[in-house]
Amino acid sequence: MKEKFYNYIQQLQDTITSKLEAVDGKATFQEDLWKRPEGGGGRTRVIENGAIFEKGGVNISAVHGELPKAMQSYFNVNDCDFFACGLSLVLHPKNPMVPTVHANWRYFEMYDKQGAIIDSWFGGGQDLTPYYLFEEDATHFHSICKRACDGHNPDFYSDYKKKCDDYFYNAHRVEARGIGGLFFDYCKAKDDFSMEDWYHFVTEVGDCFLEAYVPIVEKRKKLPYTQENRNWQEIRRGRYVEFNLVHDKGTLFGLKTNGRIESILMSLPPTVQWKYDHYPEPGSEEEKLLNVLKNPKDWV
Amino acid sequence: MKEKFYNYIQQLQDTITSKLEAVDGKATFQEDLWKRPEGGGGRTRVIENGAIFEKGGVNISAVHGELPKAMQSYFNVNDCDFFACGLSLVLHPKNPMVPTVHANWRYFEMYDKQGAIIDSWFGGGQDLTPYYLFEEDATHFHSICKRACDGHNPDFYSDYKKKCDDYFYNAHRVEARGIGGLFFDYCKAKDDFSMEDWYHFVTEVGDCFLEAYVPIVEKRKKLPYTQENRNWQEIRRGRYVEFNLVHDKGTLFGLKTNGRIESILMSLPPTVQWKYDHYPEPGSEEEKLLNVLKNPKDWV
Repeated sequence: MKEKFYNYIQQLQDTITSKLEAVDGKATFQEDLWKRPEGGGGRTRVIENGAIFEKGGVNISAVHGELPKAMQSYFNVNDCDFFACGLSLVLHPKNPMVPTVHANWRYFEMYDKQGAIIDSWFGGGQDLTPYYLFEEDATHFHSICKRACDGHNPDFYSDYKKKCDDYFYNAHRVEARGIGGLFFDYCKAKDDFSMEDWYHFVTEVGDCFLEAYVPIVEKRKKLPYTQENRNWQEIRRGRYVEFNLVHDKGTLFGLKTNGRIESILMSLPPTVQWKYDHYPEPGSEEEKLLNVLKNPKDWV
Repeated sequence: MKEKFYNYIQQLQDTITSKLEAVDGKATFQEDLWKRPEGGGGRTRVIENGAIFEKGGVNISAVHGELPKAMQSYFNVNDCDFFACGLSLVLHPKNPMVPTVHANWRYFEMYDKQGAIIDSWFGGGQDLTPYYLFEEDATHFHSICKRACDGHNPDFYSDYKKKCDDYFYNAHRVEARGIGGLFFDYCKAKDDFSMEDWYHFVTEVGDCFLEAYVPIVEKRKKLPYTQENRNWQEIRRGRYVEFNLVHDKGTLFGLKTNGRIESILMSLPPTVQWKYDHYPEPGSEEEKLLNVLKNPKDWV
């Protein structure tokens, strides 16, 4: 399974970066190959100063070795070995009318000291963070997410949509990071759902990413915007930073387990503002977005 | 003691904000009074878009009530009541040749359910975060810090200078946040040093703040700078955000104990950049700063 899924994300990285380069039309992804001293490594691809994408990364990694101490206590296990691979992407468009998107699909195995698998699971999801809310875009993104789920289990979409709203939540601001999507974790074999079944589900979600996101980019990329729109985008990007540095388990994990810093923090936006006690004008488009972030909606 | 120290920081806030307004010459501090639902409140004073200070806050608060659960486990105590008051300040100048400064002086009491004090301590310090290193500024700042310490105990300066270097450290970047200053915590009565002695020490440190910082501002505020200098300042401000959101106990505490968000996150810089895998040119002024952040120096 680990080879099959790692092959899958290698190909998916190629598919996604090729398509995004075509969409951008100006910038290309720069690739960094890196090795983890304790085992494994990754292929980081970053795009900067594009016509559409101001900054973004589509990264894969496959790491293995002894489970770091910090992860042992997190998973509540003793000394054991692990393998983890995944694809992580974040895209920060320049135009505030185009939403930021994040996705991650990953697979994890743990082994006893004889090398036998003692546990394995999939995790991942994808979620959208608009600066201006176009309801039809939210509905499009969620519809594609739902379609990818429905063939596998009729409850998956509503369960993982809710998990996404719960997870990407800035509790200290009492608001969601964005308008959600899917989030799932610890997807393990049970009863009538094998790891093979999970593989088919996760790869169908991964395969639908471009269809969920690219039409939104195409539709909004030529919309005009003002410096005020840009300021709002940069203030909202500040909330993105707050979520990633204060709450996101993946980021904190990476920082505390000696991950490759530049690949982990590639997710942070290129330019950001923090203003003291900023609130949008009543009745404005900015306030309309905030209202939805404070009260997550059903989009499908 | 709690009244005496709270009176002190109220007056110190007035002294500091008056002086900083005079130094800025353009912007003034805007005041927000706020109440904590569970007891106490604060007086937040924020300056934005000044001639010198792009963003800054000089805040006091005095809060009391039942010790929040998150703090009980942190201090390893059961249900008890507390009182805490302090002054916190952060100043982000516009000119990259002028350093950012942070200071905090605080006093804490814990009570049993009969209202008797079971523990009390002072904490605080002040530290400097330059974007371009002027060694004489670092020496000036540290000399004033040392002078405030030396009358109280000959070891205080070296001990608290080291604690400062250790605390304001971005472990995930393997570099200090700035060039340090003083940091002390859990300063409790013992042997030959009473709470009264600690009060005299902490207030002498607070009293020296303007003398430590303002001459540096005056000396550097008219230096010319380029957009490249500004970019570097904004990238370094990103490291400031990383420290405050990932490592700073005060910030995380505030976020997790329902503090007033806007007063806590007032510390975040007004404009920030994150570039992928950015390193300064070999031999540049920017690299000279990094070398010092990677190997903290003795300045006095």
